[in-house]
Amino acid sequence: MTSPARTPGTPPASSERRYILTLACPDGTGIVARITTFLADIGGWIVEAAYHSDDESGRFFTRQEIRADSLAIDYTELSARFAEVAQALKADQFQVIDTLGRKKMVLLVSKEGHCLYDLLGRWHSGELDVDIPLIIGNHPDLGPVAHMFDIPFMHVPITSETKPAAFAEIARLVEEQQPDVIVLARFMQVVPPALCEKWDGLLINIHHGFLPSFRGAKPYHQAYQRGVKLIGATCHYVTGELDAGPIIEQDVIHVDHTDSTAAMVRRGRDIERSVLFRGLSNHLQNRVFRDGLRTVVFK
Amino acid sequence: MTSPARTPGTPPASSERRYILTLACPDGTGIVARITTFLADIGGWIVEAAYHSDDESGRFFTRQEIRADSLAIDYTELSARFAEVAQALKADQFQVIDTLGRKKMVLLVSKEGHCLYDLLGRWHSGELDVDIPLIIGNHPDLGPVAHMFDIPFMHVPITSETKPAAFAEIARLVEEQQPDVIVLARFMQVVPPALCEKWDGLLINIHHGFLPSFRGAKPYHQAYQRGVKLIGATCHYVTGELDAGPIIEQDVIHVDHTDSTAAMVRRGRDIERSVLFRGLSNHLQNRVFRDGLRTVVFK
Amino acid sequence: MTSPARTPGTPPASSERRYILTLACPDGTGIVARITTFLADIGGWIVEAAYHSDDESGRFFTRQEIRADSLAIDYTELSARFAEVAQALKADQFQVIDTLGRKKMVLLVSKEGHCLYDLLGRWHSGELDVDIPLIIGNHPDLGPVAHMFDIPFMHVPITSETKPAAFAEIARLVEEQQPDVIVLARFMQVVPPALCEKWDGLLINIHHGFLPSFRGAKPYHQAYQRGVKLIGATCHYVTGELDAGPIIEQDVIHVDHTDSTAAMVRRGRDIERSVLFRGLSNHLQNRVFRDGLRTVVFK
Amino acid sequence: MTSPARTPGTPPASSERRYILTLACPDGTGIVARITTFLADIGGWIVEAAYHSDDESGRFFTRQEIRADSLAIDYTELSARFAEVAQALKADQFQVIDTLGRKKMVLLVSKEGHCLYDLLGRWHSGELDVDIPLIIGNHPDLGPVAHMFDIPFMHVPITSETKPAAFAEIARLVEEQQPDVIVLARFMQVVPPALCEKWDGLLINIHHGFLPSFRGAKPYHQAYQRGVKLIGATCHYVTGELDAGPIIEQDVIHVDHTDSTAAMVRRGRDIERSVLFRGLSNHLQNRVFRDGLRTVVFK
Repeated sequence: MTSPARTPGTPPASSERRYILTLACPDGTGIVARITTFLADIGGWIVEAAYHSDDESGRFFTRQEIRADSLAIDYTELSARFAEVAQALKADQFQVIDTLGRKKMVLLVSKEGHCLYDLLGRWHSGELDVDIPLIIGNHPDLGPVAHMFDIPFMHVPITSETKPAAFAEIARLVEEQQPDVIVLARFMQVVPPALCEKWDGLLINIHHGFLPSFRGAKPYHQAYQRGVKLIGATCHYVTGELDAGPIIEQDVIHVDHTDSTAAMVRRGRDIERSVLFRGLSNHLQNRVFRDGLRTVVFK
Repeated sequence: MTSPARTPGTPPASSERRYILTLACPDGTGIVARITTFLADIGGWIVEAAYHSDDESGRFFTRQEIRADSLAIDYTELSARFAEVAQALKADQFQVIDTLGRKKMVLLVSKEGHCLYDLLGRWHSGELDVDIPLIIGNHPDLGPVAHMFDIPFMHVPITSETKPAAFAEIARLVEEQQPDVIVLARFMQVVPPALCEKWDGLLINIHHGFLPSFRGAKPYHQAYQRGVKLIGATCHYVTGELDAGPIIEQDVIHVDHTDSTAAMVRRGRDIERSVLFRGLSNHLQNRVFRDGLRTVVFK
Repeated sequence: MTSPARTPGTPPASSERRYILTLACPDGTGIVARITTFLADIGGWIVEAAYHSDDESGRFFTRQEIRADSLAIDYTELSARFAEVAQALKADQFQVIDTLGRKKMVLLVSKEGHCLYDLLGRWHSGELDVDIPLIIGNHPDLGPVAHMFDIPFMHVPITSETKPAAFAEIARLVEEQQPDVIVLARFMQVVPPALCEKWDGLLINIHHGFLPSFRGAKPYHQAYQRGVKLIGATCHYVTGELDAGPIIEQDVIHVDHTDSTAAMVRRGRDIERSVLFRGLSNHLQNRVFRDGLRTVVFK
Repeated sequence: MTSPARTPGTPPASSERRYILTLACPDGTGIVARITTFLADIGGWIVEAAYHSDDESGRFFTRQEIRADSLAIDYTELSARFAEVAQALKADQFQVIDTLGRKKMVLLVSKEGHCLYDLLGRWHSGELDVDIPLIIGNHPDLGPVAHMFDIPFMHVPITSETKPAAFAEIARLVEEQQPDVIVLARFMQVVPPALCEKWDGLLINIHHGFLPSFRGAKPYHQAYQRGVKLIGATCHYVTGELDAGPIIEQDVIHVDHTDSTAAMVRRGRDIERSVLFRGLSNHLQNRVFRDGLRTVVFK
């Protein structure tokens, strides 16, 4: 259990090293000028830049990706100088990320394996750039899949009696890893509100329904009963309120009267897989900002 | 007000005349054989055939479109003989439609014109094959649009005080026309339950949200607040329960954080237009069957 | 024929007046800082801003939309000062647009009316904000539609013998209007290369196929024969090479074996309508930049 | 190399055993009656039925899925009696498939692993119901992936000099397995026309472009250069003409000016994966019929 997770891929060439700067602050005039002048002054070669002024919330968001080798200053100085800009702009959220540092993801699963297979295949082929030190299952079924990919798997059974203790154990195991993201990859258990709060912004779920329709259990059955002509999946941050957290990504497919509930379950898997991957990738690349219940996602 | 509505297009060539046979019955073995043998016996040239056995409801549905000129028997005899088949199959729903008979549609509108313009443009160009003897508005704003297209327009104001009387007047005007379909083309009033019941199966609404999410007023505002990544429109039969009737057609478009509520309203119009048109066309061509809250739509 | 086209809608409130600044230049460091500092210096309240650095072409593009009433300087001075910025950045393309000035669109049509009805309906309801002083048809069929909407219509027949003279007449009529855009709304004639060149950047076509597949005549027939599972439409600038100009907008719908060529023609209309409208709207709002054969479209 | 491939899943319950009857014949009256009467006579419980009369080719297609345990007769007698029906209908194609017999798939790969990981993950989890006795790579890179899933892998290098010999070896290895389908899962080699012909109807390719656009090498680069606003993938039968065989399935995603060629390559993978899986599943379930260059796909 203590063996390091397999790390596919090779370290990026130095020209591939990036600093990602993110910032959210109250909107106003001159913000973009302030930020871009700062970047121009330090000679930053901007690889990708995104800005958003939200009219309704009155907030401003930016994400800048710059080549590390274009700067004369190092990470520490960059961080210090960016913090000055952020303070001048009264930013309540800002960060400088060095892409050399790898991120860590912990997965929670039950018995349904399609999202797990998909994430592990993408990870193993280098499409998903993250370390996976641990997978936890409340059933043992998917342990062999974790082992195929040489990833430690812990089985923590959950029953209605053991729930508090089980989640305490899960929390201990997860937090030992200090993950950048915890993914509920079709984990069919409701995470206790206290943990949701503690892991706020780190905990991502894939819901097999088009939220806010069909919250809770058996969304495809609900969709079938209601007779909708589209079914979907939603990747969202988990909050204390079930299936009501900020949405990162959603997609749908058309269905019709020939699709039984079982067909919806089967066809929906493709949407769940790709929506989870896209939402997760955006999170891992610091492309997602929360703005109340809404999200800004710079693609 | 009594002048006939303009009828665009020309009568179809005799080879274009069709009989449409529809039937719904409890499922069982031999039903398709029974129906197709009947059609083969009368020499019917099947232009289009559709069948559906619903596993969960245990019901069978079919729609057959045959060339009128392929039959030696006339409409009356066809109807009588099909009724025998239907009775043998214990059908609770069956019909023979002669496409020579034109259908009638009455429109109810308020101030938002985009669905009205769209339907009238399609009607005038022959894309929507129906007669439109009357448009009723609870505001006078869209009267000039009706007049451009030479369609009678009646203004029936509705206030909270006059609501019962106003709907009684609307009912009288509508029923005078004996329409095959009554379309709420962004009619921003809740139709009284008694009328919904009376017009059950005839009353079609376009809802500017992806039902069952965002029922009721201002669905785009609700969608914005919830931070969804897709917005949609739903064409459905109206029942006594608001925005909860059987869905005929739905579609969505992707939105993101750059879409304000106003942008959603603007972009959503395209979905509303096309979803309404597709749902309505299917209804007019007898392609829609109700199966409880679900619909079977043979496209 | 000289009567002004009907102008629906009312003039915008002064707070709605915008200046749109567009610029394209070779990419480099400090460009965004230069532009945003300029805007901050003149106190410009930015309503919407977009930037794009194209890695492969090495070009930079921006579009800025600012509230006119936020500036102390007027249009003339704004234009002069922006020109200085543009020259400093070696911009080969830049413009300041005052949204008070209305744009003009001329339409060329043949017999197929669905795009015409759609554009006129959107125009009449205020969704498409432009003046339409003239519609030209090489057939008389759609004249009555133009007249319903009180828009002058000129019939200029085109035969293989009269083609040069006819296009000379069309060019004369079009240029009299000094339009900002000329739309081929299912105009089934090939515009002579010399005119395409003369109207470069002004001439927009809706092609009823997913380019670069199915160029030229009868794209739905080509699509049917090839057995594709999606059909589409493409809105593009017209150049001297048939159906090969820069693409502004595209979309598709799924088809299957049940869709005959006629069904594709019918179902494709919805895509043509919405793709043309979206492409045209982006052009009219100065959201489209050409980058060789590619386009940058700031939505 | 002769060890049997791993077979996930358990044998279906007897109530799950099905006979699939497929038939293609010249269209005419009474065909459906003939077939359904035959099925009714033998007491067949139809689980799923599909019919298609193609107006343009004048051909009729059907697929019937019946519960094996609903029949008093066995497979041999069913086949014999269905052959009589087929002959009466002058069918040039008909088959009875017993779902108890498992199908075999051989995969050909190069270095790009995303389709391979996806298929193997779906296979291992039971979503893709087939045996995979062999994977052949013209590079050794994906051998370890095959081994993770306990599937034999053969490396057959291909150079311009060794091409004929290499393909002879590939043919020998493939044919030893008597596969029901041979999938080019991003196999970056052109299969010789003689083999395409020999494997006609068995050889499936996933092309990373929206055919018929962008045939041949580097379709994403071609798409980028052409400036399209949608990119796609196509699953098709391979014929002697490169990327020109009958299309089984296609899909697209929207792209814009911010998508570099590399981004298209990355984002396109999701479409390739799901299009290949859907096309392949339909083939394996005998849902695909060829009608010249077109396909009928009963979903």
